[in-house]
Amino acid sequence: MKKEILQKLTENPSDYVSGEALSTVLGVSRTAIWKTINDLKEDGYIIESSSKKGYRLSPDSDVVNSFEIGNGLRTKVFGRNVVHFAEVDSTNNYAKKIALEGSEEGTLVTADYQTSGRGRLGRNWDSHDKKGVWMSLILRPDIPFEEIQTITLAASVAVVKALKEVADIETGIKWPNDIIINGKKVCGILVEMNMEIDRINFLVLGIGLNVNQQPNDFPEEIRDKATSLRISIEQSLGLQKPLKRSELIRVILLKFEEIYDKVICGAYEEIISEWEKYSLTLGKEVSMTYKDKQCTGIAEGITKDGKLIVRSGDGTVREVLSGEVSVRGLLGYV
Amino acid sequence: MKKEILQKLTENPSDYVSGEALSTVLGVSRTAIWKTINDLKEDGYIIESSSKKGYRLSPDSDVVNSFEIGNGLRTKVFGRNVVHFAEVDSTNNYAKKIALEGSEEGTLVTADYQTSGRGRLGRNWDSHDKKGVWMSLILRPDIPFEEIQTITLAASVAVVKALKEVADIETGIKWPNDIIINGKKVCGILVEMNMEIDRINFLVLGIGLNVNQQPNDFPEEIRDKATSLRISIEQSLGLQKPLKRSELIRVILLKFEEIYDKVICGAYEEIISEWEKYSLTLGKEVSMTYKDKQCTGIAEGITKDGKLIVRSGDGTVREVLSGEVSVRGLLGYV
Repeated sequence: MKKEILQKLTENPSDYVSGEALSTVLGVSRTAIWKTINDLKEDGYIIESSSKKGYRLSPDSDVVNSFEIGNGLRTKVFGRNVVHFAEVDSTNNYAKKIALEGSEEGTLVTADYQTSGRGRLGRNWDSHDKKGVWMSLILRPDIPFEEIQTITLAASVAVVKALKEVADIETGIKWPNDIIINGKKVCGILVEMNMEIDRINFLVLGIGLNVNQQPNDFPEEIRDKATSLRISIEQSLGLQKPLKRSELIRVILLKFEEIYDKVICGAYEEIISEWEKYSLTLGKEVSMTYKDKQCTGIAEGITKDGKLIVRSGDGTVREVLSGEVSVRGLLGYV
Repeated sequence: MKKEILQKLTENPSDYVSGEALSTVLGVSRTAIWKTINDLKEDGYIIESSSKKGYRLSPDSDVVNSFEIGNGLRTKVFGRNVVHFAEVDSTNNYAKKIALEGSEEGTLVTADYQTSGRGRLGRNWDSHDKKGVWMSLILRPDIPFEEIQTITLAASVAVVKALKEVADIETGIKWPNDIIINGKKVCGILVEMNMEIDRINFLVLGIGLNVNQQPNDFPEEIRDKATSLRISIEQSLGLQKPLKRSELIRVILLKFEEIYDKVICGAYEEIISEWEKYSLTLGKEVSMTYKDKQCTGIAEGITKDGKLIVRSGDGTVREVLSGEVSVRGLLGYV
C-alpha cells in the first residue's frame, strides 16, 4: 500500500490528494492511509498535510529506495533490481555477499548510511550521513582481467557525464577514477572483483558521491580535499540547490550502462579517448610509489588497457596499473 | 568431553582404555562415557568395545575434523583454524563467505561431502562421498596479481610432494595444476580470488583429492579420466591400502606452507623449476583454445609468472595464462 500511495502522490506533484480519495481508490480506511503517510515520513519523504485538502508530496523530498530509483529509470539492466538499506556496513560488502550467492548483473545496492564505508586501498570513506550517494553495482563482464581497468575508467567517465547532465557541473578525473571539482574530490570509485585465474566471476563497482554535504559535514582533516556537489554549486552560482540522490543514481546508471556496453564490445580506444578528454592527470607532474620507491615524473598518457604512463626526469618510462598516484595541484599535493 | 575421550583413545592406539578409567579421569558417569563413544562412532570413528576391556580406537578410522587435522600438525599458520562440515555445498564457497567476513590467512574449510563441488571453469567436481579430501584454504598474500599463478603452481608442487611422502606415490602435473597418475586425474586445484585492481584481498585455494574411491565410485563417464590414490596403490603394489584423509591434509598443509613462504619472499624461479621437475606437459603436444580459436602446438616452457609457452607448427609462439589446455596422452586426449 505504501507504494500505491506513493504512486498517487508522485503522479500529482503539485496538487493535494485527499485522504478520502486515497481511501476510496485503495479500499482501506482513512486511518490506514494516515498511518501509511506516517510510515512514508519515517522513510524520509516530506509530505505536507492539510485536514481540508489532504496530502501533498514536497518536491524537497530526497529519498533513495527502489521505487524512487525505478521511477523514470531508462536503463535495460542496471538498477532494475535494487536492495536499499537505511544503514549497512558497506554497500560493496553487501553486494559481494549477494553476488557470491548468485545475484545477477545490474543488481544495485544502495544505502542512506554506511557504518564502515571504504575507499580504495582499504581506506575509510566518510559516508555516515544521508547526504551522499552510496551505491554498489554487480557486474558479470565476460572480458579478460587485463581489461577490467577499462571498466573503472568507463565508470568515472559515466559519473562525469551524469554530473554534467543532472547538475550542470563540470568535473574532471584524477587517474584512475577520482572525480574532482576545483582540486577537491567529490566522488570515489572502488572496484572489487571475484575471479579465477582465467575467469571473472563478478565485479562489484562501488561509487561514493558527495551530494548535499555542507563544509561542516566533513571532518576537519579532509575539508581541504573533499567537496560536495552542493558546495560547488553554491561556490559557482551562489545559490543553495540541494540535489536528489535518486535522480543522480538513475542518470549515473544510464550513462554507465551505455558506456559499459561499449567496453563489453571491445571499444577500449573510444573509452580511453573519452577518459582523456576529462583527465586532470595527463601532462601533469605526478608523484607515486612504484615497487616500494617514491618517484615523480610527468604523466604522459594511458595505455590501451588503462595503465598510466609516467616519464621521470632521467627519461625512465614506467607504466602504473594503480596504487597511489598524487597529481600536483589536486587534493592538497602542491 | 568428546575431545578428551578422543585424546585418551588416541594416546593409546593399540590398547583398550577401560570405561571405568575414563569415567574416573573425566569425572563423569560410565553412561555418559558410553553415550559419547556412540557420538564418536556417529562421527565416523571405528571404536571396538569389549565389556571387559573397554574401548579401543581402530587404526582403520578415517575421520576428518579439527582434532584429527590438528593432531600432529607441524605448520605455523595453515590449518591452525579448521571449519569442518559433514556436508556443505562447496568448501570454496564457504571459505569465500568467511573470508569476506574477515577470516584469517591459513583458515581451512573441509567437508566429508560437497553437494555442489566445483572444478575450474565452473565445472562440476564429483565429491559426493567421504572418500576424498575436499579442502579450501584462505590466503592473504601481499603480492601482485601477475604472481598469483605462481601460488597455484606452488600448490600443485606441494600436493605432489605430500603424496610422495604419505603414500609413496609418484605423480606428475598437467599444466597448470592438475595432479596426474597414469594419465588420469587424481587431484584438481581451484583458486578463486577477491581483489581490487591493485590489491589482493584474499585467495581461496581449493583442493579436491581422490583418496579412497574404488573404480565403481566414479560415474562411468569419467572412469577413463579419474583415479584415486587407493586405485593406483592397488594397481602398482597389488594391495588394498586405504589412506587417512586427515594425514594427507596435514602433510599437504605443511608442504604447501613451506613453499608458499618462498613464493611470498619472491622465490619465483625456484618454484617454477620445482614445478618443471614434475611437469607432464613440457615437451608434449597440447591443444588449446586461444582467443576463441582451437590451436595445437608443443608446450615449450613456462614464463616467470607461470604462463605456458606454446609453439605451433607454423612457428607462432603463444603464452597462455590458463583456460583449457589438453595434453596429448593425458585425461583421454589421444
